[in-house]
Amino acid sequence: MTPGAGSELDRGIFVSPRDGDPSTYDAHLDAGWRIGSGVNGGLLLAVMGNALRARLASLPGAHVDPVTVSGYYLSAARPGPAAVRTRILRSGGSMSSAAASLVQPGGPDDVENERERVTALATYADLATLPVDVRTTAVAPDLPPPERCVSVADTSPDFLQEAALLERLDLRLDPACLGWMHGRPSGRGVVSGWLRMADGREPDALLLLLAVDALPPVTFDLGLFGWTPTLELTVHVRAAPAPGWLRVRHATRNFAGGLLEEDAEVWDSTGRLVAQSRQLALAPRE
Amino acid sequence: MTPGAGSELDRGIFVSPRDGDPSTYDAHLDAGWRIGSGVNGGLLLAVMGNALRARLASLPGAHVDPVTVSGYYLSAARPGPAAVRTRILRSGGSMSSAAASLVQPGGPDDVENERERVTALATYADLATLPVDVRTTAVAPDLPPPERCVSVADTSPDFLQEAALLERLDLRLDPACLGWMHGRPSGRGVVSGWLRMADGREPDALLLLLAVDALPPVTFDLGLFGWTPTLELTVHVRAAPAPGWLRVRHATRNFAGGLLEEDAEVWDSTGRLVAQSRQLALAPRE
Repeated sequence: MTPGAGSELDRGIFVSPRDGDPSTYDAHLDAGWRIGSGVNGGLLLAVMGNALRARLASLPGAHVDPVTVSGYYLSAARPGPAAVRTRILRSGGSMSSAAASLVQPGGPDDVENERERVTALATYADLATLPVDVRTTAVAPDLPPPERCVSVADTSPDFLQEAALLERLDLRLDPACLGWMHGRPSGRGVVSGWLRMADGREPDALLLLLAVDALPPVTFDLGLFGWTPTLELTVHVRAAPAPGWLRVRHATRNFAGGLLEEDAEVWDSTGRLVAQSRQLALAPRE
Repeated sequence: MTPGAGSELDRGIFVSPRDGDPSTYDAHLDAGWRIGSGVNGGLLLAVMGNALRARLASLPGAHVDPVTVSGYYLSAARPGPAAVRTRILRSGGSMSSAAASLVQPGGPDDVENERERVTALATYADLATLPVDVRTTAVAPDLPPPERCVSVADTSPDFLQEAALLERLDLRLDPACLGWMHGRPSGRGVVSGWLRMADGREPDALLLLLAVDALPPVTFDLGLFGWTPTLELTVHVRAAPAPGWLRVRHATRNFAGGLLEEDAEVWDSTGRLVAQSRQLALAPRE
């Protein structure tokens, strides 16, 4: 696929191998994936995941799907040029592992010095070859149908202005998690809803890396506004998602010491738990 | 502390900076930390965590405590010499981040070639300086008192022989999770119990890296025996634990596709949730 072709997400995560250095991939971070002044952490993980996919697809095993990805966020990524450096740790057999680093040029006075934005470790496989047994005991979130949920476009103009990426998502939030819109947060620390791309692009393993970090912070449901910068985000992709709506549930259970964990589950249209993630984030300042 | 001094755990995780290469730390993996034929993954993370502590303690901020550590397991570590290579990613401010790699010499015919066993990313801070707010909604596991739980020493001689590290732990398992000992696993996928070091060494942040991977696999409670090799393990250390017993609960909710996640929570004697972890592991072959 060439830049400009395909869906908004495919353009957003597009990478091209650098001439003469096939372990480095060039990318461009579009302002349309902003949240606050930085680029959304899930989108960054999908860009890195796409570079790793390209690198690992050409190695023995052709492991094209992320199974587990852990991103450590070192500094805020800004819209503009970026590069992903990849390093193979182990390849072949049923899974391959690799490291990736997303870097951007320094500021106008310091373009020579690269800034590392995110560093990641990942293990890839071919999800189509995994055994077919499913004995999941987790239960999918019980949501009203999408048409009875609240489109994020209707939440708050201030909020949308701060989160450009939401315009690219068709995100329908469960009204039970939206008390904060009316000054009555539930205090449970839960946000859930239906998710698909606004342009109809169907989900795959890379989209799941975005889906786990695309909802409003669970802290809104605790009555705390402001952003929750991610320190670390690990995603387990457990199956290739079926086409259609995804159900996503975010929750926190341990808000303490100025930090919180945020767990996400993503369920596909067949009712399969296709991704689980946990992130450690900085609590908003009150 | 010098090797041979202190507790079994302090000897087990002892590292010394290599002459002329202060970013590399030498270690020795003792056979007493085996599980099956390899060395326990939590112990390996504690060895790496100790090397990172030594490296980061000397840098601005003196960030001596792991806040989040993600280990990717590349090959089984064997008892014997090992080294931890460290690389600073960001230091100073309220937290520092670093990478670490645990390597061992190759086999007898190939001692020149190092084998990478675990590669990790980590963010460190000084836990004593974090804000004191605690609004945890998670609930500690309801366990019978330690004297009414089952000492792991009484579970199964075969099991103990396979898991040398259990002799160094005083681990008292909740009888409700031990149906597998009598051929009646509960099917819930839960293992919980009380944990302290057999030699009385009090818990700290590094011990928590071991504690999240020290219980029998949750798959025993699903009626599946055999080991569950870890692919990836991320631990969030959320507070320095108080002295005394730890309560540990492991659970899985998504056993599918030949993989399972295993979540662990560790609560200290004051009732604080001090660590949360999740690992992705290979399901045992039936």
